[in-house]
Amino acid sequence: MKIDGTAFRSIWVDETDHWSIRIIDQTKLPWALDLPRLTSMDEVAHAIRAMLVRGAPLIGATAAYGVALAMRHDSSDANLSHAVNVLAATRPTAINLRWALARMELLVRSYPPAERVQVAYQEAAKICDEDVATNRAIGRHGLGLIAARATAGRRVNILTHCNAGWLATVDWGTALAPIYMAHDRQIDVHVWVDETRPRNQGASLTAWELGKHGVAHTVIADNAGGHMMQRGDVDMVIVGTDRVTANGDVANKIGTYLKGLAARDNGIPFYVALPSSTIDWTIRDGLSDIPIEERSATEITTVTGRALDGAIATVRIVPKDSNAANPAFDVTPARLISGLITERGVCSANTAALAALFPQAA
Amino acid sequence: MKIDGTAFRSIWVDETDHWSIRIIDQTKLPWALDLPRLTSMDEVAHAIRAMLVRGAPLIGATAAYGVALAMRHDSSDANLSHAVNVLAATRPTAINLRWALARMELLVRSYPPAERVQVAYQEAAKICDEDVATNRAIGRHGLGLIAARATAGRRVNILTHCNAGWLATVDWGTALAPIYMAHDRQIDVHVWVDETRPRNQGASLTAWELGKHGVAHTVIADNAGGHMMQRGDVDMVIVGTDRVTANGDVANKIGTYLKGLAARDNGIPFYVALPSSTIDWTIRDGLSDIPIEERSATEITTVTGRALDGAIATVRIVPKDSNAANPAFDVTPARLISGLITERGVCSANTAALAALFPQAA
Repeated sequence: MKIDGTAFRSIWVDETDHWSIRIIDQTKLPWALDLPRLTSMDEVAHAIRAMLVRGAPLIGATAAYGVALAMRHDSSDANLSHAVNVLAATRPTAINLRWALARMELLVRSYPPAERVQVAYQEAAKICDEDVATNRAIGRHGLGLIAARATAGRRVNILTHCNAGWLATVDWGTALAPIYMAHDRQIDVHVWVDETRPRNQGASLTAWELGKHGVAHTVIADNAGGHMMQRGDVDMVIVGTDRVTANGDVANKIGTYLKGLAARDNGIPFYVALPSSTIDWTIRDGLSDIPIEERSATEITTVTGRALDGAIATVRIVPKDSNAANPAFDVTPARLISGLITERGVCSANTAALAALFPQAA
Repeated sequence: MKIDGTAFRSIWVDETDHWSIRIIDQTKLPWALDLPRLTSMDEVAHAIRAMLVRGAPLIGATAAYGVALAMRHDSSDANLSHAVNVLAATRPTAINLRWALARMELLVRSYPPAERVQVAYQEAAKICDEDVATNRAIGRHGLGLIAARATAGRRVNILTHCNAGWLATVDWGTALAPIYMAHDRQIDVHVWVDETRPRNQGASLTAWELGKHGVAHTVIADNAGGHMMQRGDVDMVIVGTDRVTANGDVANKIGTYLKGLAARDNGIPFYVALPSSTIDWTIRDGLSDIPIEERSATEITTVTGRALDGAIATVRIVPKDSNAANPAFDVTPARLISGLITERGVCSANTAALAALFPQAA
């Protein structure tokens, strides 16, 4: 999508050296547009672990380029295994990470070492292009759901949690793709943006990318969504996901489950947008089978933002002797989900519907 | 309760001049224990409006002393009316504010102007002492609920939202009174403290007062409570309230409703602790009849805490061109509430049970 009129993707091969990988350092947004150059697999692993890049689809794409950089350094079987292992361990919850790495490893290993660099770069580029095409398809299918509510020029209020926009993917986003398409077709959409503590990806990333594209939005505390639904100010919820089970349970940023409960309690449709690479066909119980990443307590005890003098500053908000806990994801059971918006269409969140849409995978 | 071994109340008449009112400036906690002196009704109104004092019971007690200070300045009927009007307009949601002001006005007006100062101070002191006694009774009734779960020395995990501790009252607190009593009786309690965006009263006030009293606690993002319940880490929820309808609907800090939904979804008891002065017997539908305060967007767009250099600093966390909305309370319908813990005992959240416990009021 666009930043100040210029089209961007969230990851690309550097235009001048044609081998290093450029990303947007998302930890610096919305205050600075910093485009670091990644030149080794270890730098890629760090970028994923430290969340310079985040969002399940983008994590997968970035890891794919990490394999390419590893092959450039040493295209042996041993180094391929090493790279895949290191990259797979960077984040535990997103399934796309393992999907992308498995795809890269299978293909790259089938070529002789001398050809692996080229093959790896090509396949990583293909994963990126496929992601863009997939998200465009998700956008088209989700657009229908929004358009159906925009009768007689009525504004459609959509609540989203965390960031499942173009910054979380290579382009378009998952949850935000239908919103961008609706906006581009002059449908009057307005987005309630959950700030999404503790890392504030809603306030810092979703608000930023919606604003840069010109989409009307309002940031609210994570606590406010239920009240907004009670008073009739939310027409639908669309969120992304880091992993979907074969029966339609959805792991997403911590707090998503609470919005799923509120949507059901108020009769508001709750949609999850995802590329099918997010589906983990091997598991059928999100609560017991999806590992939930525990992140540093520092994310709870401190907040980073821009001080009055313009400098980026971190302040502590919890007394120095108090502990904090920081589970990063939760699981929204399939029973709370009105529909899954995939690149093949919208389906119910259950085993039969998912299998019907993706028969060869299920 | 105690701060570093010294017993405190949250409001008192100055020990040296015997007329000015001392409070704890809660906007400075947990970083500084600042005890400003309030010397006029206008200073009291500012202290309530700017949330130097907050919490429904403490707001009521502070407003009562505001009437006393107003009478000290000018004990005419006109000034009494003026003071009550100004103080009543400081915060819209808490019913105790209006309850305390109505009680003060009725009594003070019945005396000749020359006697009004003394009567007003006495009545304000009585409101404070009654609040302490009420909260102690709430604590005793709530203690039974905790003790029943502490079988065989098992740790009891209690989730709370916002601050309904001694800082929100004159002493003991409402939601935290049973927890302090359980702790003092060597029951192993641990409190999950919702940070409570946007003003972080959980992270800054509840964590601070629990820590000062030695109660085990862990701060979590507001988003995390549902996940904690799903994985079995919460035995019960206890929150306070700013207004309860005659049928048991509960207005409390924004986000409480979401925790009520999660508790029900996971079969976890959800209790609301309150003095009966919090009950608004005139209304029966919380969603339509309780006015919800909209506070400044600045509370969403910025966070204040302690910078690395020790100074208190404010950082902005939302892009400069993005708007924010900030409803401060939500309504948890009675159907989600397991019980109301009052000074007269625990009752169900419905019209008949409340009326049975408080027949003269209902």
